[in-house]
Amino acid sequence: MDFVQELRGLIGEESVSTNPTVLEHHSHDESYHTPHLPDVVVFPKNTEEVSKVLHFANEHRIPIVPYGLGTSLEGHVIPYQGGISIDFQLMNQILEVRPQDFLVKVQPGVTRGQLNKELKKYGLFFTVDPGADATLGGMAATNASGTTSVRYGIMRDQVRDLEVVLADGRVIHTGSMTAKSSSGYHTTGLFVGSEGTLGAFTELTLKVYGIPEVILAARAVFPTVEEAVSTVVDILSAGIGVARIELVDARSIQQVNLYSQTNYPEKPTLFIEFHGNEQGLNYEVDFAKKLADENHCEQFIFETNSKERAQLWEARHNLAYAFIHRSPGKKMMVTDVVLPISELAGSIKDARKAMDDAGIDGAILGHVGDGNYHIILMIDLDNPEEMLKAESLNKHIVDYAITRGGSCTGEHGVGIGKAKYQRREHGDALDVMKAFKAAVDPNGIMNPGKIFI
Amino acid sequence: MDFVQELRGLIGEESVSTNPTVLEHHSHDESYHTPHLPDVVVFPKNTEEVSKVLHFANEHRIPIVPYGLGTSLEGHVIPYQGGISIDFQLMNQILEVRPQDFLVKVQPGVTRGQLNKELKKYGLFFTVDPGADATLGGMAATNASGTTSVRYGIMRDQVRDLEVVLADGRVIHTGSMTAKSSSGYHTTGLFVGSEGTLGAFTELTLKVYGIPEVILAARAVFPTVEEAVSTVVDILSAGIGVARIELVDARSIQQVNLYSQTNYPEKPTLFIEFHGNEQGLNYEVDFAKKLADENHCEQFIFETNSKERAQLWEARHNLAYAFIHRSPGKKMMVTDVVLPISELAGSIKDARKAMDDAGIDGAILGHVGDGNYHIILMIDLDNPEEMLKAESLNKHIVDYAITRGGSCTGEHGVGIGKAKYQRREHGDALDVMKAFKAAVDPNGIMNPGKIFI
Repeated sequence: MDFVQELRGLIGEESVSTNPTVLEHHSHDESYHTPHLPDVVVFPKNTEEVSKVLHFANEHRIPIVPYGLGTSLEGHVIPYQGGISIDFQLMNQILEVRPQDFLVKVQPGVTRGQLNKELKKYGLFFTVDPGADATLGGMAATNASGTTSVRYGIMRDQVRDLEVVLADGRVIHTGSMTAKSSSGYHTTGLFVGSEGTLGAFTELTLKVYGIPEVILAARAVFPTVEEAVSTVVDILSAGIGVARIELVDARSIQQVNLYSQTNYPEKPTLFIEFHGNEQGLNYEVDFAKKLADENHCEQFIFETNSKERAQLWEARHNLAYAFIHRSPGKKMMVTDVVLPISELAGSIKDARKAMDDAGIDGAILGHVGDGNYHIILMIDLDNPEEMLKAESLNKHIVDYAITRGGSCTGEHGVGIGKAKYQRREHGDALDVMKAFKAAVDPNGIMNPGKIFI
Repeated sequence: MDFVQELRGLIGEESVSTNPTVLEHHSHDESYHTPHLPDVVVFPKNTEEVSKVLHFANEHRIPIVPYGLGTSLEGHVIPYQGGISIDFQLMNQILEVRPQDFLVKVQPGVTRGQLNKELKKYGLFFTVDPGADATLGGMAATNASGTTSVRYGIMRDQVRDLEVVLADGRVIHTGSMTAKSSSGYHTTGLFVGSEGTLGAFTELTLKVYGIPEVILAARAVFPTVEEAVSTVVDILSAGIGVARIELVDARSIQQVNLYSQTNYPEKPTLFIEFHGNEQGLNYEVDFAKKLADENHCEQFIFETNSKERAQLWEARHNLAYAFIHRSPGKKMMVTDVVLPISELAGSIKDARKAMDDAGIDGAILGHVGDGNYHIILMIDLDNPEEMLKAESLNKHIVDYAITRGGSCTGEHGVGIGKAKYQRREHGDALDVMKAFKAAVDPNGIMNPGKIFI
């Protein structure tokens, strides 16, 4: 532990903490995964300090875990091997807004809420919305996505350039400020989603969009999950500009009503948001409604004023809390998988049946335009039998997805929770990933134990 | 050369050729770069044969060059170190169309024309249009893009999964059939654009789109390049769904008129295509026209019937031939760079001035929505002074771009022509790229001498 003293010499007393509360704060994320303390937490103020810390850690084979706000869901930031947790909260500057280029340069500790507040002044917004007000560095590290990805793409699609500090302290830039490039390997895409295992991000250049002229929200109620999903396929085929299209199953709507004092019909429901200009949108919304009708939509209700619209998305975002609320003493286990959209309805039905069979309650909700859905299970971590059931349910859902050309996680990432499915999903490609990691982190100091087991 | 006999034993007499005409055919691409013969050309029929060839070549340290149709523009497929050219023309099957998932699985030798003919039956189309009717394997290898990328994205955005044969013969899949994933490293994006230096592609899963209800084309004429570019920025800011928006400069329009018997005003011109549904489009087109007017547009002319529309895009696509036609005995040197869009107008003006100063004639045309433009120079390869001038012009244009946050190639790729700019553009990140290559191709047999020098 004398390395802590050396760290203090390296980047200053005030930037290095072993305070028990600070250590505890960096021992967990928002998931059910078991916490573990780091030996020390550092708070660098710039790229140079990050470089110094990594170079030092690499020389001494000390594990490094980059840490944003700890909102990850698969244990990504838990330092299971101790070592140094790097907290980027002091690197939280918005460095440059380039409205004409639809670009912004930020430090990794900037949150998406903070960024959107600044961008609003320019009539711009940052699209990726994973729910939590995460840091942009963290969102790039896990390749976050969320409700708006069906229209605007995932985190990887927004990152033009990363400044990355490698394990040995070298600082590289992975891209440029251009919309596209065919120069050299596309390492930006590889670093996005690498979960801190390839390097630490110290600057991000991100794509932003103009705030749409009109935003409309609607709720569409269907007899079955199949008909809801089929509507989504029809809407996407027609090229209608939905910006969000979220599925909430009947059981979950029940819980929404209880928790949010809403009175929504307790059937499979799509929560939809349209972005566009007034004339274009009117036509598109009518068209979407017609497509929903053809799929036996029972109600298609516009939330025209901003209060009702806010209530609708609040109800959707509060779904997790709705289940937490009624399950005192239990902890949330969230899993997410993604499939080709043609396999989505079958997968969701199968998952609900598996939950019923196992006697575990929970929510099913999906970014259905992406073929991505989540299951929120409420479990008692101290009940080994229930834990076992939940784990086996998780495995069942992942198996179903991978067998049908899907993936074990659409947006939460691998962390520790999905590491056991990597070989099954990637086969020999997993060895290629390991080889890429070894090429830039030969000593294995960067977030060890994550992704690869 | 006795390895050729061994190859025949490995994959059959009929699949291995040393016929001089065949060798010559595989010695060049469409560029001005000096040809070089391979020792042998093989025509594998399936993944297993590709794997056998690579494994064999790796054991014997024989260079491998994957070959599609040879339409590349920077010498990518020229076997400067001899060895084996792998021609994928026999692997040209469309394996599966999944309309509901907007996906198609193809072998690498399928051309985009062949694919679009098949997709039409389903009301779908493949979006990437680099001009040439290239193979999809080749387009993935160079990360091709083109006129439609402003709306639908580049080749990398379309590739969901690649089956890749690695140097040692291992066969991996880099992705899945899903719209997104956060499982493991995104190796798909790294292999796309790797120009045959990381492995050979044997199967591609690609994203396709519904054919738009209505397609409208227009020509917008401006007093200056700046005003044309400014219109593009305004159109993109407004979220108007342009599918193509191409800039052709005044000098190039002159040549178009001469060659295509058109009578277009000889001023900076945008060639625009709108995709959408009728009602939505009418509004968007009016809006676009208004934005053009605000930028002093002198003419905004719709090519309403399909014949006029075809003539417009033919004129655009024939621009290269228009210059070739008037320069008998000269060869085309095409260069492409990409910049943040705010730097585009300045870059194009600077390039035209540099061409005038050097006394070299040529076309300037750009995928201006992407910040990408090409210069087509007509040069006499046997005139060392002219070659030197052209090379120095190329360098000037690249320097201008990189200095302003741009990249030395937007879509043509590195090959041999842009290898010398890689260190300047990527700095230490180039060493990371090399390390990734070494991780999967330790003997350096895959397309040696390309990208890295």
